[in-house]
Order: sequence, then structure tokens, then C-alpha cells
Amino acid sequence: MSDFFELVKKRQSTRSFSDKPVEREKLVEIVDAARLSPSACNSQPWKVIVAAEDKKIVTEVAESVALLGINKYFANAPVFFVVLEEHAKLNRSIAQIVDSQIWAPGDLGGFTLTLCYAAEELGLGTCVIGLFDRPRLREALGLPLHAKIKLIVAAGYPSTENVRHKERKTLEEIATFV
Amino acid sequence: MSDFFELVKKRQSTRSFSDKPVEREKLVEIVDAARLSPSACNSQPWKVIVAAEDKKIVTEVAESVALLGINKYFANAPVFFVVLEEHAKLNRSIAQIVDSQIWAPGDLGGFTLTLCYAAEELGLGTCVIGLFDRPRLREALGLPLHAKIKLIVAAGYPSTENVRHKERKTLEEIATFV
Repeated sequence: MSDFFELVKKRQSTRSFSDKPVEREKLVEIVDAARLSPSACNSQPWKVIVAAEDKKIVTEVAESVALLGINKYFANAPVFFVVLEEHAKLNRSIAQIVDSQIWAPGDLGGFTLTLCYAAEELGLGTCVIGLFDRPRLREALGLPLHAKIKLIVAAGYPSTENVRHKERKTLEEIATFV
Repeated sequence: MSDFFELVKKRQSTRSFSDKPVEREKLVEIVDAARLSPSACNSQPWKVIVAAEDKKIVTEVAESVALLGINKYFANAPVFFVVLEEHAKLNRSIAQIVDSQIWAPGDLGGFTLTLCYAAEELGLGTCVIGLFDRPRLREALGLPLHAKIKLIVAAGYPSTENVRHKERKTLEEIATFV
């Protein structure tokens, strides 16, 4: 149990995982927390595929993110959450004036980060991945051509407890108080 | 101090606020937590204007969200966080193949929800608003035409402690475990 401010400081991109397998109950608890995330008109434009038990699929997801040599780190990740964008059903008065998916990317960003914080709370490390071999991933997961794979979260027990310093813009650079 | 899972359950869209003013230190703490949110290539494509002290500006923001009669609720919100999308500087190898802003909406979604969770941790209620009168808001905040106002978060002490039941899709509807 941790204060949210501590959780935000601890949560970092984890690219090296221990051999310890992740308990199924934890995966369920994590997705169940993300499920409660807010979204425009409560549209909940998300689905998630949790790849963990089928080692063949886990390996295929890992290989699909090893793109351009960038994401070679994830070969030992025991879990991947594959987040899909779904149709967002907005309230009628709003759907009349904006595209149904206008807020979906932001809502999925919140869903995905809630998932990461929940994982962190349970002692797991995570890394959000935005680049991957889409045709390969679609095939590995048996998804149709129209599936909108948005983000992947690699997860597992981190191989180190070390919390790195976060390089961020200063408060003054990003915030104005009026 | 609360377990993250409790925080997620408690956090809900607040549309009615008490008269209690929000301490400046809390606003700083909230933005400082959101500042640590993750983003693609650590691009941090965000800025935030915190409208709280200048009552004229707060009123103008409230009026700019009272659009189509949808957001009439926010007349008594003491604080508005106005979240702007900024240029996302990606790593060169990635910037060569995708648009710089491809992950910015999702990153802003995570930034915004981190801000909401941080506010909740400090006893404040929040509501994310996606529809607003952009020209009016730009004018009220003295922003240039090219400013990309993405989301607004209304915040303040809620007028009730009551936690509503969250209507959400079931775990089975949104998740597949493989």
C-alpha cells in the first residue's frame, strides 16, 4: 500500500524482468482496476488481451515489438497487455457534432496508465510500447484486419529494485498558475 | 493515504463543488505529480494552465465549458486545469517513421488522469471536460491561435462524500486472457 505520490515516483519504464512468473490473480486485479478508468460519455472504448499463459503467444508478441532493433529489451517480459481501441459510443447530443473516436486515444492513454499504476502497486514493473509489427501481432493474436491495436504494455517483476531519477521538464516549464 | 485500487474506486466525475477554496500548495503538488507521467520517448508533450486565483478567468473558463447546455454544472468549480498539447520531440530513429504527435493524445490522457488521481489523493474531486468554446477560452487565457487546448479538468472539494456506483463493462466484456 502506497501513497499515490509515492507510486508515481516509483513507477518507471521497466525493460528487464526477473524469472518470477506473475500470478494470474494479479493480472485480473490489474485489468479490473483499469476497467474502472473514466472515459468520454463513459464510452469505455477499450479491450485488452493479456498474453501470459500461452508461451508461444508471449514470444510472438515479444518478437513483434522487437522492431527496428528498438525494443529488443522485451524478450524476457513474462506478460504483455495488448490494448485495443474500440468504437466509442458517445451521448447522442455530442455524437451529432464530433467524431465518435475523438477522445478515444486520450481515454486509452488513461486506461493504459491506470493499468501501469495498478501493476506498480502490486510490485510489477511495466513499459508502454507504441511501435510494433502490426500484421505479425494481428496474426499471432488472431485479430481481424480492422482491429485497432493501440498500445502494448510489457509487464513482470523487475530484475532490480533500483528507482532511477526521472528526467522531466521543471514545473515552471510546464505550468502556469493564474 | 490510500491503496491505488481504493483510489481508482473512489475517483469519480465530480460536478458539484463545496465553497471551500483549494490550497495553492495542493494545486502545485497535483501538477508536480502529473509532471512525472510517462510519455513516448519522454517527449512530455504537455503544458497546463491552472486557473484558480484570478476569479475573472475562472468564471470565463466555466462559461467556455457551458457549451450546448451540457456542462452547466461547472459554474461553481473553483479550479480549472487547462491541458495543452505541445510538440512531441521523439527519438530521431522513431521520428523518421511516424508523425511527432502520434502518441501525444494518449500521453496527454495519462497526464490528465494522473492529475485527477493526485487530486483525489488530496481529497479533491475532478471532472474531465472535452467540449468547450475554443475561441472564447483562447481569448480568456490569452493563448495564440495555434494553441492546442486538449482537455480541461474542473476541480475542487466535492459537495458530497457519496461515492456512486461505477457503471462499467464487465471484465469478461473487455479482457481476454491467453
